[in-house]
Amino acid sequence: MTEVSLELIKQAAETLKDAVIRTPITHSITLSKITGAEIYIKFENLQFTASFKERGALNKLSNLTDAQKKAGVIAASAGNHAQGVAFHANRLGIPATICMPKNTPFIKVTQTEEYGAKVIVTGNSFDDTAQYAADTALKESITLVHPFNDEYVIAGQGTIGLEIMEDVPDLDIILVPVGGGGLISGIAVAVKALNPNIKIIGVQAERFPSLHRALNNYDFNDQGSTLAEGIAVKDIGAKTLKIAQKLVDDILLINETDIEIAICLMMNIEKTVPEGAGAIPLAAALKYPEIFKGKKTALILSGGNIDTRLLASILMRGLVRDGRITKLRIELKDVPGALAIISGIIGTKGGNIIDVSHHRLFTELPAKETYSNITLETRDRQNLLEILKELNDAGFTVEVNRYTDL
Amino acid sequence: MTEVSLELIKQAAETLKDAVIRTPITHSITLSKITGAEIYIKFENLQFTASFKERGALNKLSNLTDAQKKAGVIAASAGNHAQGVAFHANRLGIPATICMPKNTPFIKVTQTEEYGAKVIVTGNSFDDTAQYAADTALKESITLVHPFNDEYVIAGQGTIGLEIMEDVPDLDIILVPVGGGGLISGIAVAVKALNPNIKIIGVQAERFPSLHRALNNYDFNDQGSTLAEGIAVKDIGAKTLKIAQKLVDDILLINETDIEIAICLMMNIEKTVPEGAGAIPLAAALKYPEIFKGKKTALILSGGNIDTRLLASILMRGLVRDGRITKLRIELKDVPGALAIISGIIGTKGGNIIDVSHHRLFTELPAKETYSNITLETRDRQNLLEILKELNDAGFTVEVNRYTDL
Repeated sequence: MTEVSLELIKQAAETLKDAVIRTPITHSITLSKITGAEIYIKFENLQFTASFKERGALNKLSNLTDAQKKAGVIAASAGNHAQGVAFHANRLGIPATICMPKNTPFIKVTQTEEYGAKVIVTGNSFDDTAQYAADTALKESITLVHPFNDEYVIAGQGTIGLEIMEDVPDLDIILVPVGGGGLISGIAVAVKALNPNIKIIGVQAERFPSLHRALNNYDFNDQGSTLAEGIAVKDIGAKTLKIAQKLVDDILLINETDIEIAICLMMNIEKTVPEGAGAIPLAAALKYPEIFKGKKTALILSGGNIDTRLLASILMRGLVRDGRITKLRIELKDVPGALAIISGIIGTKGGNIIDVSHHRLFTELPAKETYSNITLETRDRQNLLEILKELNDAGFTVEVNRYTDL
Repeated sequence: MTEVSLELIKQAAETLKDAVIRTPITHSITLSKITGAEIYIKFENLQFTASFKERGALNKLSNLTDAQKKAGVIAASAGNHAQGVAFHANRLGIPATICMPKNTPFIKVTQTEEYGAKVIVTGNSFDDTAQYAADTALKESITLVHPFNDEYVIAGQGTIGLEIMEDVPDLDIILVPVGGGGLISGIAVAVKALNPNIKIIGVQAERFPSLHRALNNYDFNDQGSTLAEGIAVKDIGAKTLKIAQKLVDDILLINETDIEIAICLMMNIEKTVPEGAGAIPLAAALKYPEIFKGKKTALILSGGNIDTRLLASILMRGLVRDGRITKLRIELKDVPGALAIISGIIGTKGGNIIDVSHHRLFTELPAKETYSNITLETRDRQNLLEILKELNDAGFTVEVNRYTDL
């Protein structure tokens, strides 16, 4: 039986050579300053399909027998795994079928088709889709390429560990996003074989603690959604769990707001686009500074496939937190001229009014008074504070929305 | 007198070694497919201060006499040049004063101060600020570090040309953003000395055609603003113009919408954050496919410092163009139930209504009819077309906002 070993991962590295990008790992001065750790970032979002998943997919495909290659493969995924399998199967001339759940954005379907794969859109939930793929694999005697619970897939992801050890051999800690566990178990096998003193710490979204609950043996109903879609996996794999039990040092859980903040930082400071799962290691370094203080810590920026609308909205919410976009509720007498005074103060101080609405009907104020809701843009938090002071000095009662940190 | 030569640029490269990042240049499969050219990207947005400006600043600072270093330097800039000068002056122990116009965001002031520079906020326009810096340099006998019109600054930027020639020596064309001309003249001297067959093409914002109008000898009142703030320079430098006249092969002008589209593509495809000026070479490759067809073309992604609010809004506008966010104006009878039918159709087809407003007062329709303005989010353009068809089939007259490409 195949076992995931340093040897298997070294073979995978040979297989992947020149077909997968050997991504850079770089030191970040500013993130080091912010976190108190010595931060290094491994840019797996620079792979052609913008995630590490190509590594495992290509290693699996390359290790099929000629007969298996000829028969073709099937996989279930609407995300990074789909693109990794489709792209490399096409390169190798292996027929590939990708099953995607209903409601998958059309662009993902066409992208995967452009890589030469046949796409079947089926299943109302991802579980249904995965079941369909497994059934079809059996029925048609083709190979199912599992996204994580497979020795060759794990070994493929483990090549990241080899590259890190070549580039920054004296690390203290590697922070790895965890969904099904393929990435962390591959990296752990490679790194621990070369230097058992390096800590391998997994990071999960609070809403999908698959490995955390398997290691700590508790039940949890994964519900809702997470910004870290790429690691929104209900159950850890049996094979990946076995490796994690032996080699993973700790698991940290991260909430949604912390993921948002980490995404903004990656964009604003590193000028790189992370998906939620890709930013979660940074979120962990920010949330638990006591663990990482002074430690040479590598963050696996696992991928960069994030929906544009989501990204824009995360950036905007960041501006609200920072006080650069704010909503004020101002109590005022319902007489002509009050708005002129307020907008005069805001304008003089350099604020930019985006939206104004008055509420005369639904208010507990006396009939001749009203609320004005003003959405405004400021240069920065200090500028907002100046504007608030001027408004207060002019006698207005101002309430700031609760999402702005003052 | 110092002249910008290959020799001077090679000296600059020695000076910059290990103090400035030797940025990667990589081939983009997808952008090559989209443009029809063979696209390479030089990632100058990965410099520590996220722009190439460090190169010229550091080379200038390093070539000062000991007495000049001790006396200190002054520069005028609210942008990339400020950060480049402040950061490296601090590293070298040279006192630096940075003059910034009033209304510079506080964050830029504090960032520059954190690099150890003294910041003076002065001047209502950038011209005033620049004048103040020049006057102060004279009065206090300190060195003015000009952002572009200086041999050492030009030679520093020229090191980008050397790196490109080492990494991809067989290019056909290099596309360079142009404001004051420091970057393009430095690159042109280096590249033309090594291979005069490589075309050096400058790219400018239509609203700030400083080099284009100097070469073609016409007057132009630069007005308004541009997304490409980093190259919003009124007048080309005398020294940079002289080099450009000899060595630059062509200048292309780009409008604001094309810059927006290029920014979105850099984010969505390359997973990297460009500022407007950094994306403008890609805009040129997209706009003039006949020039670049089949040519090995390098784009200088000059920087990544873009305001977050602007970036979020550019991404959102991209979604509007793509039909993923749309505003529909639907004519309907002002009776209860009409909205239920419309929202039923949209919901069933997977559309997501973000905002609804009715207009009963300001309309040319008969008194019992009204307009409903519905803002909705769809999976993609195809999904929007399906929804429009269903609404039409149900008898509604629907008008789509003119910013959506259907």
